[in-house]
Amino acid sequence: MRDERSITERLRKLAVIPAGSPVIKGIGDDCAIYRPRGSADDLLFTTDMFIEGLHFLRETHKPEIAGRKALVRGLSDIAAMSGTPRFCLISLCVPPWANTKWVDKFFDGVLKMAAATGAIVAGGDLSHGESLFCDVMVCGAVPRGQAIRRDTARPGDELYVSGLLGGSSLGLEKMSGKARTRHLHPEPRLGLGSFLREKLRATSAIDISDGLSLDLQRICLASQVDAAIIAPPCFAGASLEQALHGGEEYELIFTVPRSTRVPNVFEGVRLTRIGEITRAFGSGGTILLNSMPLEPLGYDHFRQPGTATRRDRAV
Amino acid sequence: MRDERSITERLRKLAVIPAGSPVIKGIGDDCAIYRPRGSADDLLFTTDMFIEGLHFLRETHKPEIAGRKALVRGLSDIAAMSGTPRFCLISLCVPPWANTKWVDKFFDGVLKMAAATGAIVAGGDLSHGESLFCDVMVCGAVPRGQAIRRDTARPGDELYVSGLLGGSSLGLEKMSGKARTRHLHPEPRLGLGSFLREKLRATSAIDISDGLSLDLQRICLASQVDAAIIAPPCFAGASLEQALHGGEEYELIFTVPRSTRVPNVFEGVRLTRIGEITRAFGSGGTILLNSMPLEPLGYDHFRQPGTATRRDRAV
Repeated sequence: MRDERSITERLRKLAVIPAGSPVIKGIGDDCAIYRPRGSADDLLFTTDMFIEGLHFLRETHKPEIAGRKALVRGLSDIAAMSGTPRFCLISLCVPPWANTKWVDKFFDGVLKMAAATGAIVAGGDLSHGESLFCDVMVCGAVPRGQAIRRDTARPGDELYVSGLLGGSSLGLEKMSGKARTRHLHPEPRLGLGSFLREKLRATSAIDISDGLSLDLQRICLASQVDAAIIAPPCFAGASLEQALHGGEEYELIFTVPRSTRVPNVFEGVRLTRIGEITRAFGSGGTILLNSMPLEPLGYDHFRQPGTATRRDRAV
Repeated sequence: MRDERSITERLRKLAVIPAGSPVIKGIGDDCAIYRPRGSADDLLFTTDMFIEGLHFLRETHKPEIAGRKALVRGLSDIAAMSGTPRFCLISLCVPPWANTKWVDKFFDGVLKMAAATGAIVAGGDLSHGESLFCDVMVCGAVPRGQAIRRDTARPGDELYVSGLLGGSSLGLEKMSGKARTRHLHPEPRLGLGSFLREKLRATSAIDISDGLSLDLQRICLASQVDAAIIAPPCFAGASLEQALHGGEEYELIFTVPRSTRVPNVFEGVRLTRIGEITRAFGSGGTILLNSMPLEPLGYDHFRQPGTATRRDRAV
């Protein structure tokens, strides 16, 4: 089996977008961008699966927490592109072990997060199956032409990250203390996403769903640039390894023009300069950590066992 | 476990849509309706799961056929609300048995149907898991305020159905001949959907995904009306039972004002008057077949075994 990137790349090449299409951006960013006829807004669309045994275990995730997390994944993609959530669709395949109470509480978790962020639950699909499987589509709006993309970072831009990294991986490992809370209750950085567009004029952004190393590489590959970074700020107790490669952080990586004044803190979340974008040596995607090449070891669902450290992200 | 309708109904009540929201219609129709700021179009959104063992078996469905069918389910919802497909998002969880070739051919099936209907593949999500699970979101456009809904049928309206029914169930049972083709290659009635809006001024419509009896009841419940019908036209070899309750037909049920002239055939597909909408005796949802009550035995994922004939829709 090829890796996720090569499957996606094949699909991207085959899924031709005709000239003049209202689809402004298809496969290859956190969200697709659609431009409704005559509208002042562009619409952002993202879909994320949430699978038992892979993204959560029922032993550690209460149903409300699972429901909340299932929605956060998409909300974080909307944040990364600087959108405001509008609505969501929830597909849920219910396994034999989940009774009515579990399903109700799962949806309570979804609904609470939806209400807090404006992502109205507008529909979905229900089914029975062998294991719990959920897929959440989130739509967000952004002023026309102003979505922040991952393919627009430029050499010379400064590179920032929000929050402290590695906490989610640490929490998954330990299942105790603040790291556990961090793992179970991620926050989509929606306010920060809007701030990046309105005040900082960020040139690119992505959310950390699969690990800083892998998600930063996605910016670099899409923008055909390289990056040079220092160690990111670590969550208390987390290793540098966890901060560099740990997934499910839902913090934002973003780039700004060199002269931009970025505050140290936004809405209680640290913003830290971790490096800069550099001209691509080859076709782009090379990241140097303290001048040494950094392998993108973040989570790839399709990486073959043995070709890289496959962290156990099954949660 | 409660039935699908009661789970959906609870969710519909809790998923409050604030006044002035761009979400014009949330849970409760084939698609959600979203009105983009300043746009001449409303957008339709639907999401449908496509699950191994439930919606298809790999023994009978080649990967291209599975991919095509996964997309048809949503396209049919867009047709029922009279929309034109714009784009789709595909989430796919790949099981160990599916190799790269299978995945490529699955996407080839999706892409071919997408190209034929204008539903650009604009994104999605990929993952590994125990069994094949797919969820497809389709977006369509319709002129502002002109989507055909299921909650707007009125007493006195005439009731029609497209095509010949029962063929998909028969094909599933026999896996031979024309019925097999019918089962494996359903057609979304997109041209008919537009015709219903532009020429017939249809008052309501729904697609037959779970069976005529159940889907017609959905129109009646949503519109708070009853219906009186005669036997629908049957696919050659299909039983009346299959025509009344068989799912995965993807034909359209629609209502028109009494005086409307409906052609016998549209784009090669028969249009047959099967009855009329009547004033609700109670709160609506009662269907009489030749003056006898017709039970909605179509497919409900959450119906308890024993409470009704549970047809094996696992395909």
